[in-house]
Amino acid sequence: MREKNIPPLLSNGEISEKLDIPLQKLEEAYCKGIIKYYKEHGVKALQFRKSLKHIESGTMVTLGDEMEVIRGFPKIRRTLMLYPALEKHFQDEIAVEEKMNGYNVRIAQVDGHIVAFTRGGYICPYTSRKATEILDLDQFFQDHPKMVICGEMVGTLNPYVSHCYPEIGKLGFRIFDLREKLTNTPLPIIAKRKLLLDYGLEPVRLLGIFPIKEAPEKIMEIVRELGVNDREGVVMKDPQMQLEPLKYTSSQAQDSELEYALSYPFDLAQAFLFSRIIREGFQAYEMGESSDELRERALRMGESIIYPMLNTIHRVKEGEVAAEDLIIEVDSEEEAQEFIRHLRDLKVMATLAEFKDGKAVIRRIHQSTTDKINNYLQGGLY
Amino acid sequence: MREKNIPPLLSNGEISEKLDIPLQKLEEAYCKGIIKYYKEHGVKALQFRKSLKHIESGTMVTLGDEMEVIRGFPKIRRTLMLYPALEKHFQDEIAVEEKMNGYNVRIAQVDGHIVAFTRGGYICPYTSRKATEILDLDQFFQDHPKMVICGEMVGTLNPYVSHCYPEIGKLGFRIFDLREKLTNTPLPIIAKRKLLLDYGLEPVRLLGIFPIKEAPEKIMEIVRELGVNDREGVVMKDPQMQLEPLKYTSSQAQDSELEYALSYPFDLAQAFLFSRIIREGFQAYEMGESSDELRERALRMGESIIYPMLNTIHRVKEGEVAAEDLIIEVDSEEEAQEFIRHLRDLKVMATLAEFKDGKAVIRRIHQSTTDKINNYLQGGLY
Repeated sequence: MREKNIPPLLSNGEISEKLDIPLQKLEEAYCKGIIKYYKEHGVKALQFRKSLKHIESGTMVTLGDEMEVIRGFPKIRRTLMLYPALEKHFQDEIAVEEKMNGYNVRIAQVDGHIVAFTRGGYICPYTSRKATEILDLDQFFQDHPKMVICGEMVGTLNPYVSHCYPEIGKLGFRIFDLREKLTNTPLPIIAKRKLLLDYGLEPVRLLGIFPIKEAPEKIMEIVRELGVNDREGVVMKDPQMQLEPLKYTSSQAQDSELEYALSYPFDLAQAFLFSRIIREGFQAYEMGESSDELRERALRMGESIIYPMLNTIHRVKEGEVAAEDLIIEVDSEEEAQEFIRHLRDLKVMATLAEFKDGKAVIRRIHQSTTDKINNYLQGGLY
Repeated sequence: MREKNIPPLLSNGEISEKLDIPLQKLEEAYCKGIIKYYKEHGVKALQFRKSLKHIESGTMVTLGDEMEVIRGFPKIRRTLMLYPALEKHFQDEIAVEEKMNGYNVRIAQVDGHIVAFTRGGYICPYTSRKATEILDLDQFFQDHPKMVICGEMVGTLNPYVSHCYPEIGKLGFRIFDLREKLTNTPLPIIAKRKLLLDYGLEPVRLLGIFPIKEAPEKIMEIVRELGVNDREGVVMKDPQMQLEPLKYTSSQAQDSELEYALSYPFDLAQAFLFSRIIREGFQAYEMGESSDELRERALRMGESIIYPMLNTIHRVKEGEVAAEDLIIEVDSEEEAQEFIRHLRDLKVMATLAEFKDGKAVIRRIHQSTTDKINNYLQGGLY
């Protein structure tokens, strides 16, 4: 094994005990790069880049005045068929919450400061600032310092996943889970909503709690309706939160992801295509669509594939680079630059394209797409 | 390096000299499995499973009375854009031959017997038999024993790629190259066609020889027309055959490959999807299609993706396995079994589903597709 300087804190046994992972496993994981030392935005921590035994990827062990564990947000599995998967997976009742199209954020208090972590466990400076602007969190964390607020940052001025929600506008935060720091135990659905209400914090929409027998049909209807309104889908949960939740998305969500991926085909399409197409196939099957509905689905999917690709080829032909512009609201150019440095830590190539009137245009460049399209346009062979 | 029993013939220097590859490289390649010893259907040979320096994958060094080298058929590269790729790649004139949708076969005389090799260098017993039935090759090989006939086996009674050509019917063979055994040197276009005519052998269609300036437009028109008639595309060649040929295919060919791949999504789709979609994007761009034409292309592609997948889900739901039935004409059940053994050598899982009146139904089973669809239909999570 390659020797690395293992931080003394990792080796003193406290973390091993807290996480219930043998010391040797932790040291091995550190040497393999599964656990990394993290120091950004005033927080020192051990960051889990991948899962290790029962500890989720994205978990942060913060090493401040008090050592704390902020567990990673658990991966939510997907079902391709509502029936019979729901019946097999859940008991009695299913709570259906809206799955929104934004990015997953965990907000927690670390050494008295409120910080927002991305899925991977990185502190996002922009999200941390916006979360505390949008939400009044002080009282909540004063009363519940051991809780983690898990939710979706959504809206159009969104540096990761920009999507228009009429009720959100530029930027909003909707909460789907309240979890305990060390154990990752979530509150039951009703208790969670009650507590959020008490603090004036906004949960994601609860679309119903259904007996298991009725659930597939009800949920399919909900998802169909969500799709028509350009909304993503649902997360289905055991009301007591004793069982793993499942997710299910609308055809339109699949297509809009295809559209995005095919805008940057040589950077994103390979990873996106197969799974979205499979989802469409099973959904078409379960919905038992008429030949007109099927034709409509086929056309919608075909258009989501061809049009964005064609559009990008045209843009590159005109001399542009294949890039997406993300707009964020910041108080200073330095704040924008700080965000760009954060993106680079995540290996995302981005530049500041414009800064004006508190708005920064962050340009994310898709280099392979730009290079390959240029090459083919110039007669390069495939 | 793992020790293997290197066949003495490989080590005596003759092959090394013939192929112009150092002895040590050959021995290394043998140990790595790049070269394998082959003994089937009365032929002993060294088979190149992968390319090695300038020697193509599929090359066979036959070890009979006389040692001979039958070179692999060179990979033909694809262009995504006719303009400017053709101008960059060719000189003066471009000969355009039809690319047919069947399987690539090399026919050669080995120790006085006429044998048909598949692309990978395997002797296909069915093809060997059919080729000699369909074609009158004795005189040709008597006069030209050092030549290899390269062509496409096409038609509906085709165990690899069944496609309906009105002028072919059940089974036919169309020749695109005459090459020299050891050097792989092809005859120029006109010389090849003349020689084939002399022996009553059928070449693929020559669709024109165009000055380079006119070629992109002419070829696009040809490919559009081929597509409308459900035909695959073209191979573009230097009339002198001094330059590497290029290929280009119709939108309908892309879609029919998608259709095939999506019929067995968990076995084939991953490998097929991306490249076919990319081809469609660049073709739509180069054709400068109207919004109606684009919509039609999008619909056609979407339907090629959704319908076959849906159809297979339905079939598996009904208890069928995801399988394709290939029909071949054989004189006896033993001949069919021999072909199935050949398929198994190629790692293709197949069984004899029916044998009646000289027709054998070979069932090729796509196991992952069958298993995964069953799992999802029973509520398995993705």
